[in-house]
Amino acid sequence: MAGSPRRATGRRLQLPLLCLLLQGATAILFAVFVRYNRETDAALWHWGNHSNADNEFYFRYPSFQDVHVMVFVGFGFLMAFLQRYGFSSVGFTFLLAAFALQWSTLVQGFFHSMHGGHIHVGVESMINADFCAGAVLISFGAVLGKTGPAQLLLMTLLETVLFGINEFVLLSLLGVKDAGGSMTIHTFGAYFGLVLSRVLYRPQLEKSKHLQGSVYHSDLFAMIGTIFLWIFWPSFNSAPTTLGDGQHRTALNTYYSLTASTLGTFALSALVGEHGRLDMVHIQNAALAGGVVVGTAGEMMLTPFGALAAGFLAGTVSTLGYKFLTPILEAKFKVQDTCGVHNLHGMPGVLGALLGVLVAGLATHEAYGEGLDSVFPLVAVGQRTATSQAMHQLFGLFVTLTFASVGGGLGGLLLRLPFLGSPPDPQCYEDQVYWEVPGEPEDEAQGPLRAEEPDTRA
Amino acid sequence: MAGSPRRATGRRLQLPLLCLLLQGATAILFAVFVRYNRETDAALWHWGNHSNADNEFYFRYPSFQDVHVMVFVGFGFLMAFLQRYGFSSVGFTFLLAAFALQWSTLVQGFFHSMHGGHIHVGVESMINADFCAGAVLISFGAVLGKTGPAQLLLMTLLETVLFGINEFVLLSLLGVKDAGGSMTIHTFGAYFGLVLSRVLYRPQLEKSKHLQGSVYHSDLFAMIGTIFLWIFWPSFNSAPTTLGDGQHRTALNTYYSLTASTLGTFALSALVGEHGRLDMVHIQNAALAGGVVVGTAGEMMLTPFGALAAGFLAGTVSTLGYKFLTPILEAKFKVQDTCGVHNLHGMPGVLGALLGVLVAGLATHEAYGEGLDSVFPLVAVGQRTATSQAMHQLFGLFVTLTFASVGGGLGGLLLRLPFLGSPPDPQCYEDQVYWEVPGEPEDEAQGPLRAEEPDTRA
Amino acid sequence: MAGSPRRATGRRLQLPLLCLLLQGATAILFAVFVRYNRETDAALWHWGNHSNADNEFYFRYPSFQDVHVMVFVGFGFLMAFLQRYGFSSVGFTFLLAAFALQWSTLVQGFFHSMHGGHIHVGVESMINADFCAGAVLISFGAVLGKTGPAQLLLMTLLETVLFGINEFVLLSLLGVKDAGGSMTIHTFGAYFGLVLSRVLYRPQLEKSKHLQGSVYHSDLFAMIGTIFLWIFWPSFNSAPTTLGDGQHRTALNTYYSLTASTLGTFALSALVGEHGRLDMVHIQNAALAGGVVVGTAGEMMLTPFGALAAGFLAGTVSTLGYKFLTPILEAKFKVQDTCGVHNLHGMPGVLGALLGVLVAGLATHEAYGEGLDSVFPLVAVGQRTATSQAMHQLFGLFVTLTFASVGGGLGGLLLRLPFLGSPPDPQCYEDQVYWEVPGEPEDEAQGPLRAEEPDTRA
Repeated sequence: MAGSPRRATGRRLQLPLLCLLLQGATAILFAVFVRYNRETDAALWHWGNHSNADNEFYFRYPSFQDVHVMVFVGFGFLMAFLQRYGFSSVGFTFLLAAFALQWSTLVQGFFHSMHGGHIHVGVESMINADFCAGAVLISFGAVLGKTGPAQLLLMTLLETVLFGINEFVLLSLLGVKDAGGSMTIHTFGAYFGLVLSRVLYRPQLEKSKHLQGSVYHSDLFAMIGTIFLWIFWPSFNSAPTTLGDGQHRTALNTYYSLTASTLGTFALSALVGEHGRLDMVHIQNAALAGGVVVGTAGEMMLTPFGALAAGFLAGTVSTLGYKFLTPILEAKFKVQDTCGVHNLHGMPGVLGALLGVLVAGLATHEAYGEGLDSVFPLVAVGQRTATSQAMHQLFGLFVTLTFASVGGGLGGLLLRLPFLGSPPDPQCYEDQVYWEVPGEPEDEAQGPLRAEEPDTRA
Repeated sequence: MAGSPRRATGRRLQLPLLCLLLQGATAILFAVFVRYNRETDAALWHWGNHSNADNEFYFRYPSFQDVHVMVFVGFGFLMAFLQRYGFSSVGFTFLLAAFALQWSTLVQGFFHSMHGGHIHVGVESMINADFCAGAVLISFGAVLGKTGPAQLLLMTLLETVLFGINEFVLLSLLGVKDAGGSMTIHTFGAYFGLVLSRVLYRPQLEKSKHLQGSVYHSDLFAMIGTIFLWIFWPSFNSAPTTLGDGQHRTALNTYYSLTASTLGTFALSALVGEHGRLDMVHIQNAALAGGVVVGTAGEMMLTPFGALAAGFLAGTVSTLGYKFLTPILEAKFKVQDTCGVHNLHGMPGVLGALLGVLVAGLATHEAYGEGLDSVFPLVAVGQRTATSQAMHQLFGLFVTLTFASVGGGLGGLLLRLPFLGSPPDPQCYEDQVYWEVPGEPEDEAQGPLRAEEPDTRA
Repeated sequence: MAGSPRRATGRRLQLPLLCLLLQGATAILFAVFVRYNRETDAALWHWGNHSNADNEFYFRYPSFQDVHVMVFVGFGFLMAFLQRYGFSSVGFTFLLAAFALQWSTLVQGFFHSMHGGHIHVGVESMINADFCAGAVLISFGAVLGKTGPAQLLLMTLLETVLFGINEFVLLSLLGVKDAGGSMTIHTFGAYFGLVLSRVLYRPQLEKSKHLQGSVYHSDLFAMIGTIFLWIFWPSFNSAPTTLGDGQHRTALNTYYSLTASTLGTFALSALVGEHGRLDMVHIQNAALAGGVVVGTAGEMMLTPFGALAAGFLAGTVSTLGYKFLTPILEAKFKVQDTCGVHNLHGMPGVLGALLGVLVAGLATHEAYGEGLDSVFPLVAVGQRTATSQAMHQLFGLFVTLTFASVGGGLGGLLLRLPFLGSPPDPQCYEDQVYWEVPGEPEDEAQGPLRAEEPDTRA
């Protein structure tokens, strides 16, 4: 039993050593490679004649902070819906994202911002690193409850590298537009996690069925995650776009899309629910699909109507996915998708990529004016037609699906390494395997919400 | 019984169809009328010679996001104090506000920003739509627990229209100043909801008395709402004011006013509490009255002392209202005000309007200098005296009270339409009527916090 | 018994009268002294020829709001880990911080921004007042559960004055740099609180041992506080620095430092935990030490590697402190440190001060270029060498420790005044002493999470 003293002792050094090793390695790489960029370095910024008001910080930092809230509060609490897995959901989110921020600074920096042998960092690299952490947390959602922290750190190590390569291929090599990451973040993170979950398939997962659901209060904690994700999604999609109308339009489109996915989710949830009742699982998740679906097209001239239509479609597809597709995925395809990331990130991500294909293909000089140069620079300079841009977008989706699937497969094999601890079937979705939980079962437990013995904090 | 299969089946299509109908209608109207404004449209923004730094986005979007948090997290969780109504409080807030954002974009756009037959949208329309959602949620607070989601959507449909008309009359026709909405948002929302609640009076509401209170954890969830509302209220009041000193001064005044309403609330709550104990109801609500009371005067030269005095007055009045007035309202006036919106929004809103009358009447060229033009443009150009501006402000309050009362009455009649589902008295304040709640009563329930059967998420 | 009618009645006027007295006093002082500054006053701002975009509001307000979230949500919920003290943790945080904002506006204004007999206020004074509130809440953490609200208000009254004097000595007289307050906020607040807690030592505190721990859900509420503190700490440290590269670099350094303290905390927590299990106390607190440790050096040219190294060190030291030092502090030194502020703020604060000494001593014209003038103005103009600046930094630490210790001692004597209510030993860490708690023990209580009688809200 994973929670037993003997087994736990055998593995007790695994997580600490891995943390120390990874931190040591990134610290050394930071010392060698990472430097302040022109806007954060005292000497570089004051060399030349800038107004402080021109510093990128003032244009990006508020959006960065919103994204930061989404990654740590949003994802963390959204996954805290399980009755006895809140510590792990919030805590492992914290651990994985913290490591991903460091590691993706290096990986993304290597691909995107090497200057004279150094990686230059500032608010843009902070946003990009948070985006990578988002993709990792999406994958985490697919395997939530069935993996230990050491496994998850290795997953992060691998996924961050593949995320960086895929992003580089799409954005830099193919000239694909994907500001809010319908492809690079959501599709990639979802299918990476789903394939990984397939490789880790547990035929006996029924044994922890009593822990797989929520309780009243855990559903409210999860709503904290949902609502913060919903609120700040306009900042997520607009954080890395071009300044001015680009950020403004992306935020507006995302805002409208989310309102429509919310209405669509409530409609469908009540429609398919028993006795017409709403299901918290749908509201917590599918209502967010409107943010995912405009991750690519949000910065384009989607029109407010287009944003509503896309969001509505995503919310309904996502809700139907939770209701009808998730059980099939498990029964037929042996994919156990704890948080239903296929419904929230997978399908809406693919839809978002296709929406990007459509809207890119419709781009005209008339609709974008001089702004075409910031949205589709290659089209603006005549290097591509709009149709060709659309085809590149579509190709980007296939590249992403390929990287995600192969990567998820590799990740699954890596995580199955026998010396890596993984909770036994009856203890999946149970914090106690990895955490000191106030009040242990031997103290005449009456259920997950019983009064507890004091811990030893003071 | 509303929760019984037969009745629920009979009404199970009501919410889905209404959502779909409303979403379909707003989508069509968006397609016809709504367009990106000059600052969000790629072609329009790049036509002419703007610096991206001049885009309104950078001056308003951080405030918008704070307002957005208040509407969805603040109102939603503040209302989650009830022991078995957290799903509905947070969930229906989500639904109503999402619909209100779309619908008020259309209504407010029709009144305020029609250009060549089109409604132009951007960050300012986003803020205004969130403000309208705020008013709707205030009204929701008055009828919380006693109405179903279909009823509430119809309330939103009606209230948004009346909100838009009232706002147009005050701001555009009467030239009234009300940046933070003491009148247009708080007074309007509160009295609309109170009259509506009067029309929906339930003499047998005692039957659900066991559900009308909080439990320990639900009070902590409600404090999440309170604290986020309190923190971001300076952004709420300053979001739509003139740039520069206008936003800066409004935020500062609101910040001070809130500190004083907090001290006043703690003082009065302990003073009137049994054994000198503090009451969470007061702290959760009355401490916020300082934000409401400077909704009109916050952008004026109220002085820091004036902000403290106003906030303190509002906090004390609000606390006394919860203690002494709410029981009278129910017993004598048959107004069942679930969240006490009369104490938090009604009285402080009226006080805020009167404070606006006073401070407007004291306006001088000396005190405002060239800034008079941004705060009281009609006074600055000599079209009105300060006294005349004050009278217009006062008249605006009466207009608001009239619109709210008549509207609330109409709303009440609308919501009493017999085919609209409404929970029976013993099931008011009970999530189970409208939600799949983890662990149904038949599973040997031991109270609202018992351990539950797993749901079917995975 | 403190909660008994007789004793409570005897003291029931204490809190209300103190609140009213303090609010009255600050209101009068505001009327006499406090005025809008040039950027918030309508006449002053419009006199001369400013662009509204130049208003300090746009450079500081988003950071201010992040700090505001940290003070009220962060500190409040972080301290809500106790099973029956959530109302007090969140509620008294609310009360103390609200008063501290007013009072420190006066105290800090007196020392820093008197112009012609008036204190000029704006967004910078708002940030500074929130910083002082942060220090007060750190001290609150040391005495959490063992003090009543009237005592805590008096503590705030005294501590705010000493905070203001210490800050003035360091920043204005000694020319010490300490933007994020490793010394002025964290070291000062921690040692003030620890000495105060020593003076209030309770040998019989064992009597409330059953209330000193957390329960499952209270630990999740505490994580809300942790995560919001962690997310917004980059804004905290950068809020008052010079514009441009200063804010940008400080935010970046803090961001990296926090990721490393998180990894270090997870590593050490699992290493020292029983059976290799993680301890929520460590994760909730020590993971934040990375923000504290770069409070002084964050604005300097610390380098990204330096930030990682500092954060990692702070996280590990803090975790080890919780595990090994806290029990010794209580057993040997009679310091009962409820929240372990010595581990989160004390030691990391001192480390942060020493890091500032080191990095200041290494400052060169080469590394800072023209930016030296904003970071070390006295070094830039040749009035000091870098070594001399480092010595001043070190002296600042000793001044802070002296002020904090003497102040904490005085505070302890003040709080022991016999007429001030303080909870008896068996009722420490119990909300019921000061709050109406839903469901009193006489109603067949089954533990802290039982179902409750309705309160009288509606």
